Amino acid sequence: MPTNRQILIRSLPKGALAVDDYEVVTTDAPAPGEGEVLVRTIALTIGAGQRAGLQGSASYAGAPTTGVVMGGTGVGRVEVSNVDGIAVGDVVVGPTGWQERSVLKGRAVQRVDPDVDPVLHLSLFGTNGLTAYFGLLEVGQPEPGETVLVSAASGSVGHLVGQIAKVRGCRVVGVTGSDAKCEVLTGRLRFDAAVNHRSETFRDDLKAATGDGVDVYFDNTGGDILGAALRRMRPHGRIVCCGVVSQYDTDDPQPGPRGIPGLLVNNRVRMEGFLVFDFADRYDDARRQLRAWLDAGELESVHDVVDGLENAPSAFVDLLAGGNVGTRIVEVG
Amino acid sequence: MPTNRQILIRSLPKGALAVDDYEVVTTDAPAPGEGEVLVRTIALTIGAGQRAGLQGSASYAGAPTTGVVMGGTGVGRVEVSNVDGIAVGDVVVGPTGWQERSVLKGRAVQRVDPDVDPVLHLSLFGTNGLTAYFGLLEVGQPEPGETVLVSAASGSVGHLVGQIAKVRGCRVVGVTGSDAKCEVLTGRLRFDAAVNHRSETFRDDLKAATGDGVDVYFDNTGGDILGAALRRMRPHGRIVCCGVVSQYDTDDPQPGPRGIPGLLVNNRVRMEGFLVFDFADRYDDARRQLRAWLDAGELESVHDVVDGLENAPSAFVDLLAGGNVGTRIVEVG
Repeated sequence: MPTNRQILIRSLPKGALAVDDYEVVTTDAPAPGEGEVLVRTIALTIGAGQRAGLQGSASYAGAPTTGVVMGGTGVGRVEVSNVDGIAVGDVVVGPTGWQERSVLKGRAVQRVDPDVDPVLHLSLFGTNGLTAYFGLLEVGQPEPGETVLVSAASGSVGHLVGQIAKVRGCRVVGVTGSDAKCEVLTGRLRFDAAVNHRSETFRDDLKAATGDGVDVYFDNTGGDILGAALRRMRPHGRIVCCGVVSQYDTDDPQPGPRGIPGLLVNNRVRMEGFLVFDFADRYDDARRQLRAWLDAGELESVHDVVDGLENAPSAFVDLLAGGNVGTRIVEVG
Repeated sequence: MPTNRQILIRSLPKGALAVDDYEVVTTDAPAPGEGEVLVRTIALTIGAGQRAGLQGSASYAGAPTTGVVMGGTGVGRVEVSNVDGIAVGDVVVGPTGWQERSVLKGRAVQRVDPDVDPVLHLSLFGTNGLTAYFGLLEVGQPEPGETVLVSAASGSVGHLVGQIAKVRGCRVVGVTGSDAKCEVLTGRLRFDAAVNHRSETFRDDLKAATGDGVDVYFDNTGGDILGAALRRMRPHGRIVCCGVVSQYDTDDPQPGPRGIPGLLVNNRVRMEGFLVFDFADRYDDARRQLRAWLDAGELESVHDVVDGLENAPSAFVDLLAGGNVGTRIVEVG
């Protein structure tokens, strides 16, 4: 009987997340029932938003608990199928959690193109890419020539937002957490400018980089960066509220930024939250467009790969400290 | 030669505004030049937003200064006209400031219907009514059956917002600052419910009054009331950012409410600031609709009248403390 290595939540973090909040266990692999499949995980994706799931009722993901497998999205290969339309050997994406093998309902998994690098199903063609696509284009509605600012710009969503904005003919400025990541943005990813939010001159640097101001701000961070961006918004600007990474790794969230709602009134700014799931009926169209851009070399899906399921906890802690460039992937098997 | 009583700004307020920040002087009436009119003020309107104009660069009104006539909108009668198309005796609305007589450019004043109570040109047919109309209908986009929440609900804009929402078939809940004002809202103005934000049980009361949650929140206050309302927003709710009265009468504005932007993301809430001036090309249509509703008895323009220009400063201080019900009007002559 095959075994199943799993990463369990040992304790809910007090303050910042620690590797010790997880433990690795090995159990017997589960057996799928009627209408279920057994999936062998190929790779997992880790995103900062998963930290919110450990905060309890503050998150849309519901209240967390201990002693269970850490949740998360993976890509895997079907080992056993009791589902019509899903065959052994199919490549699927689903809520595998942090484990080698998972039993999932047929309706919880999605068959994906086996001829594509499986990791792309977790990045550009997965939730990260779709979030960048719909958040920027549908919520932000950038026009050619406008200035688009994105925070966590070298992250899993941010690095795609900036590139899509470039495809759309915008001037793109990224905010990220180190000078090295700024260089990735302006060099490899062709952003027009990048600003390090850990610099003491951040607000001045942001002002210089954004010239006449910002038309669309894609906010992955909230907190002080949102506060600074608010002061750069042009009249009728739009703030796309995608994530709040500055507030995830704590049990004492900050107050909201000063100037809300006054600055929204003065500059007639629209600030709008969204969840990508609301666009589910348009995923296929978005994936076709993203693939076309990828194939044409107009954008690049950057992957930050960690090898081995047992390294998922440290990869998550490191990600929350800003250690990744692109989509963080854990290769499992 | 006629004289001109004026209210000058003597000092910019430190902390809360005081009557002593103003002084009354009497000068000679000014003489209009080419392209100008001399207007005798009939009445002024005072709104909380004018307090922001004394805060300096934080306001869209520009930096304030001392030794000048307090700004403000008035309705008056033309005494001398050097403008084609404006005759002596015409009733006009314009930026008269707090004084008996003002010289204004022809293009700065608007001729209004002399057969209407002049005060209505400062309330329902003026900026207050237009702000309620466009803010609620265009920015908030309420649907029949939805729940609309409005803060400063007995104020110059708020009492009209609630009534327009009722006309549109919404369930309407008002937040105001006293039990007596709650009774005005649910009695005279036919709101479905009203909540006193000064009550110790405010958050519980708000929860009870808003049932399944709020679809449109028309925010005149910001601050703690915005913070409470954020937690009552339904998925895809809209927050109309109109004013920030909680932050005007101070030189130390609060941080923004906790939960921004996280709650906007989780509930896909849109929060949008607006200025009524952006809708100027549609004012006439709006006024026709407001007049039709008024004539049909579907809404009421409530006026809170103070007699005498010299009482404008105390009327303003009292308004900032929540002393008014409806549009505060100062009758000048």
